[in-house]
Amino acid sequence: MNNKPITDKRPLILVSNDDGITANGVHELVDCLVKFGDVVTVCPDAPRSGQSMAITVNTPLRIDRLDDFQGAKMYKINGTPVDCIKLAMYAVLDRKPDLVVSGINHGSNAAINVVYSGTMGAAFEGCALGVPSIAFSLTSHDPDADMKRCIPFVEKLVSGVLEHGLPEGVCLNVNIPAKGAAPEEMRLTKGCKGKWTDEYQEYTDPQGKKFWWLTGSFENDEPNNEDTDEWCLAHGIVSVVPTLLYRTAIDLSSLEWIEKQ
Amino acid sequence: MNNKPITDKRPLILVSNDDGITANGVHELVDCLVKFGDVVTVCPDAPRSGQSMAITVNTPLRIDRLDDFQGAKMYKINGTPVDCIKLAMYAVLDRKPDLVVSGINHGSNAAINVVYSGTMGAAFEGCALGVPSIAFSLTSHDPDADMKRCIPFVEKLVSGVLEHGLPEGVCLNVNIPAKGAAPEEMRLTKGCKGKWTDEYQEYTDPQGKKFWWLTGSFENDEPNNEDTDEWCLAHGIVSVVPTLLYRTAIDLSSLEWIEKQ
Repeated sequence: MNNKPITDKRPLILVSNDDGITANGVHELVDCLVKFGDVVTVCPDAPRSGQSMAITVNTPLRIDRLDDFQGAKMYKINGTPVDCIKLAMYAVLDRKPDLVVSGINHGSNAAINVVYSGTMGAAFEGCALGVPSIAFSLTSHDPDADMKRCIPFVEKLVSGVLEHGLPEGVCLNVNIPAKGAAPEEMRLTKGCKGKWTDEYQEYTDPQGKKFWWLTGSFENDEPNNEDTDEWCLAHGIVSVVPTLLYRTAIDLSSLEWIEKQ
Repeated sequence: MNNKPITDKRPLILVSNDDGITANGVHELVDCLVKFGDVVTVCPDAPRSGQSMAITVNTPLRIDRLDDFQGAKMYKINGTPVDCIKLAMYAVLDRKPDLVVSGINHGSNAAINVVYSGTMGAAFEGCALGVPSIAFSLTSHDPDADMKRCIPFVEKLVSGVLEHGLPEGVCLNVNIPAKGAAPEEMRLTKGCKGKWTDEYQEYTDPQGKKFWWLTGSFENDEPNNEDTDEWCLAHGIVSVVPTLLYRTAIDLSSLEWIEKQ
């Protein structure tokens, strides 16, 4: 069953991200979305990259309202992207939104990155709360990267999802290539298999004690697979991966031993 | 392809959790696991519940070795459960482990909780790094809850996974009911659909400013579905949900509009 909005009202769009309320990406996104509906933006008060679906369980959360931007209401919360979606639904919005949009992230969320991404965390949470949800990411960490090349695809997907809805338990992970000419094509793909390697840089502090900092490089296990997000991004094509909130595996044929007494 | 260990050596077992290195659950787990192999325990230095697959990207990580416990090496890291698995593989272990075991968590990770769980975060990360991985949770938040009732199921699943391996990209989310008589049965189930409601308690601080704290109650959308984890747990049965690391949805029939120009 599609969770297509059934209201006649102007759509209510909840926006979040994981780069925080000051990021360029969320401002470019809001600037585009205000023509589709009433926009309420609720972002972390500071960068929260790599927060996945983390929730804040042991400390209180606060909501601060900021100046409106292009007619959109803007708020910050001292929490994770998932906290922003949950608390926005509970204490900021006066009705269930018609759409959750997360991003535009500064950096790729293709392949295995989908599991660590706070940008995707916000979209997964929207999906968990029964709202069609889309995450957008540009494959560049440069804070001044050209977000404008994302906008035609934001427009197409937002208007499409407002019209068609999304299947229950599925949200969209959209990655836009940052290199080369502005992309012209968009494809449904799958997250490519691969892994991060050489994941830490090792240091020694002034007291002679070691510490480590996360780094690493992504190793693509299927670089020639044209059906994957990484292949499309490497070839200048926007990747749309329909992504599952629910996690239960279906093929249990090799697990029958578990139920044997 | 099953990632069954092919070594003749005594198995190397990496243990983590999200309740932190001092939790009762991880000590009960280690006490059981030392008979199956060489155990190295690398846990967060403090409780990290609800951390999902969060990674620490902007601050350095440290590793501190503690006293051995029952012959197992014990370490703490100032990071998330995923950080513990990644950094253990990178800087603590001298070879790839044969098994990752996470828990025993104090509290249920059934149903939608799987997506927020740091206990599951550690298991997902083990899975991402190509190691068969199992997460155990007891459905009680009481720090002194009876973890012993979990042990027969830990033993059966650990010895079974060491023998059979697990399918690529699949880890096990095991929940053990805390109420009633010690469970006797274990079933392969699926995560039940449902949602958290009434998610925040609202407060006013001494300066008159509002703040919010996460709480809520779980609403089961399919309470009579005998195939689900929640149904089994409510009926005194241990639930084993084979859980997917990869997230791409397969049924794209309702998404064809995305590729239309």
